[in-house]
Amino acid sequence: MKIYTKTGDAGETGLYGAERVGKDHPRVEAYGTVDEANSAIGLARAALGAAHADIEADLEYLQNALFDLGADLATRAGGPYERNLARMDASDVEKLEALIDRYQEEAPRFTGFIHPGGHPAAAALHLARTIARRAERRVVALMRTEEVNPEALRYLNRLSDLLFTLARVVNKREGFAEEKWLVKKRR
Amino acid sequence: MKIYTKTGDAGETGLYGAERVGKDHPRVEAYGTVDEANSAIGLARAALGAAHADIEADLEYLQNALFDLGADLATRAGGPYERNLARMDASDVEKLEALIDRYQEEAPRFTGFIHPGGHPAAAALHLARTIARRAERRVVALMRTEEVNPEALRYLNRLSDLLFTLARVVNKREGFAEEKWLVKKRR
Amino acid sequence: MKIYTKTGDAGETGLYGAERVGKDHPRVEAYGTVDEANSAIGLARAALGAAHADIEADLEYLQNALFDLGADLATRAGGPYERNLARMDASDVEKLEALIDRYQEEAPRFTGFIHPGGHPAAAALHLARTIARRAERRVVALMRTEEVNPEALRYLNRLSDLLFTLARVVNKREGFAEEKWLVKKRR
Ligand code: B12
Ligand code: B12
Ligand code: B12
Ligand SMILES: C[C@H]1O[C@@H](n2cnc3c(N)ncnc32)[C@H](O)[C@@H]1O
Ligand SMILES: C[C@H]1O[C@@H](n2cnc3c(N)ncnc32)[C@H](O)[C@@H]1O
Ligand SMILES: C[C@H]1O[C@@H](n2cnc3c(N)ncnc32)[C@H](O)[C@@H]1O
Ligand SMILES: [Mg+2]
Ligand SMILES: [Mg+2]
Ligand SMILES: [Mg+2]
Repeated sequence: MKIYTKTGDAGETGLYGAERVGKDHPRVEAYGTVDEANSAIGLARAALGAAHADIEADLEYLQNALFDLGADLATRAGGPYERNLARMDASDVEKLEALIDRYQEEAPRFTGFIHPGGHPAAAALHLARTIARRAERRVVALMRTEEVNPEALRYLNRLSDLLFTLARVVNKREGFAEEKWLVKKRR
Repeated sequence: MKIYTKTGDAGETGLYGAERVGKDHPRVEAYGTVDEANSAIGLARAALGAAHADIEADLEYLQNALFDLGADLATRAGGPYERNLARMDASDVEKLEALIDRYQEEAPRFTGFIHPGGHPAAAALHLARTIARRAERRVVALMRTEEVNPEALRYLNRLSDLLFTLARVVNKREGFAEEKWLVKKRR
Repeated sequence: MKIYTKTGDAGETGLYGAERVGKDHPRVEAYGTVDEANSAIGLARAALGAAHADIEADLEYLQNALFDLGADLATRAGGPYERNLARMDASDVEKLEALIDRYQEEAPRFTGFIHPGGHPAAAALHLARTIARRAERRVVALMRTEEVNPEALRYLNRLSDLLFTLARVVNKREGFAEEKWLVKKRR
């Protein structure tokens, strides 16, 4: 089977459940942006290599979970295939909170905005963080017109905080000092 | 001549054909996103280096073609400069299909979603893939209000499938194993 | 204090000034995209390393200034905390113009579109350039419904020209030749 089916050439595509919508539908925009955030995490992993086994494993977990999230967003409430699906739930969000708490112990205390960057993997984690936040905004936009699983939104909210914390831990471990914002008014 | 002309400082800019529109016009959004996808391909090429001459040459071709596509999108149907322009056509799309078919022979069989990442160039190709898909969504949005060359849309649809296939070929050649999505319900 | 406050879990968040808005508000979209551009600059810095002290210092300045810009965009005109804030002003824009002029002397003459890429840092600067342009589009969209500091918009317009010029200077210094667009009609 070819990967290109040509069925989307006129601008429509399928949700999970065979229903057709325009590719500019807010639902497609939402899971498409989750896919983009996932790819940015892939960039971070590529830059991290095998250096930090715990972070590496947790990023792999996140990538997998983002497909769960993508499937959740691709499946309309009440749609025909909904029963095939396990939606995001409170325990998924708690898993992220436990990760944030654990890595937060290792990160420096947060006392103001820091320049995104440092080690290449940290820089990519910051980029992923901002794309995850864009995905969150797209899910909020989707909520204006369609029912959305509230745990999916909470997951994305926590995700960007975890990526932020991971970026800081990578920099700390790799010896990159944080640069802090010097507010214009105080310079 | 300075690169900054200040003519866009109030939020308007020119299409190809001198017509002025707001920078938030869906047409500017469409070719601006193609420019972003092109830059992500540049990131992939930078990470690939000279390692795979065939892929390198094909990515260079793609970058060039994305300016053809950008020019197509920047030029309104019936606009004054349209005669200067060669729009995207069926043979451009066929060229992408031939590339997909060729690289698909080398890629592993696709049996389910794979984590975007692996080799740094593959990771960047995945990022480019998701930005190409965003560009596709923006072109579909543009179609709601203005006439768009249907071959431009088909080109973008094929482009993300090619970038996906190239990412997988890079990983195969470089010895990176694919990680597959383990669906939540089956874990 | 934990980094995650859970107060944004239902899709609303705070501007600077404590006012609550939906996360899909055009104002949040605008400064969120500036944050993304800032992260892409971080990626460029990570790839540049310590190689070019002048560019490194100027990118650090830019990252800092983008938080000034973010604060400007996060603060509604007339809002309660506006007096804490120093908004972007003409001298900020002039500073960018001086930087463009300086680096332009070193860059090759611009005679047509060039493929974004080359050295990894140059490739990331092109990506940052296109995200800065997306941020500019989002600020223009915001202007449709709310008052925006015109210097904030000018700053973003100049920013993408500076990032373009810096990408070209990095490539020149590092010995990467520019590839030019060969217009479809002329091939
Ligand atoms: C939504 C969607 C996306 C979204 C979101 C998906 C997500 N989960 O995050 C995103 C944007 C990520 C996406 C991307 C892509 N997609 Co897509 N996608 C879909 C779609 C519509 C639904 C997929 C889904 O999430 N299903 C939900 C899960 C729960 O259901 P499921 O996959 O069927 O899984 C069940 C069964 O498969 C089974 N199962 C799963 N694993 C196993 C294993 C065993 C051993 C067993 C027994 C059973 C089993 O159990 C699961 C749960 O019940 C499908 C088409 C469709 N209607 O199915 C296309 C589809 C899978 N995508 C396709 C393509 C081409 C792609 C891309 C390559 C496009 C591109 N160029 O970027 C990428 C690949 C991304 C990657 N990294 O691999 C094609 C594949 C064509 C082909 N030749 O196989 C499909 C079939 C659409 C089509 N007709 O063209 N996609
Ligand atoms: C649309 C557009 C874009 C879009 C899309 C373009 C695309 N093709 O993908 C995007 C977003 C990519 C873009 C980006 C940029 N752009 Co622009 N862009 C334009 C615009 C409006 C049209 C360009 C176009 O595509 N024309 C279509 C082609 C077919 O026409 P053409 O370029 O005139 O080519 C014809 C002739 O030049 C001739 N020709 C071409 N090559 C040759 C060679 C020879 C030997 C001969 C004889 C003839 C010849 O034949 C062609 C076909 O008939 C022009 C302004 C304008 N109205 O022309 C600005 C313009 C070229 N851009 C400009 C700038 C500054 C930029 C950016 C640097 C902005 C930034 N900071 O990111 C980047 C550069 C990107 C890069 N990688 O190099 C400036 C350049 C200013 C200057 N000092 O030269 C212009 C002039 C706008 C302006 N007034 O400010 N741009
Ligand atoms: C807008 C905003 C953003 C925006 C834009 C900000 C910008 N400037 O670009 C963006 C999108 C970048 C952002 C990102 C993040 N944010 Co934010 N953000 C805010 C918000 C609403 C306003 C910040 C701001 O710009 N203020 C404007 C400046 C001028 O005011 P100020 O910071 O108070 O600075 C004054 C004083 O602090 C004082 N001051 C500053 N420095 C110093 C130093 C000394 C010595 C002294 C005496 C005084 C002093 O003078 C300044 C001028 O008067 C605040 C909440 C709030 N209402 O304050 C959250 C807030 C700071 N953000 C928060 C978080 C969590 C984040 C992120 C980690 C989220 C994420 N996961 O990505 C990132 C971090 C990014 C980074 N690189 O560090 C949290 C921090 C929670 C905590 N535990 O501390 C806050 C408090 C919101 C919240 N309640 O959750 N944010
Ligand atoms: C830290 C600050 O970031 C803003 N904020 C909260 N969520 C998002 C998002 N998804 N995208 C961009 N900005 C966001 C709010 O203003 C918050 O206070
Ligand atoms: C593989 C799946 O990706 C979705 N899809 C199709 N085109 C796009 C796009 N441009 N952006 C995001 N998602 C898309 C559809 O749901 C398709 O079935
Ligand atoms: C160089 C060309 O880029 C387009 N242009 C100007 N500003 C933006 C932006 N923020 N995003 C995308 N494209 C833009 C205009 O068409 C201009 O002429
Ligand atoms: Mg949050
Ligand atoms: Mg497709
Ligand atoms: Mg401009």
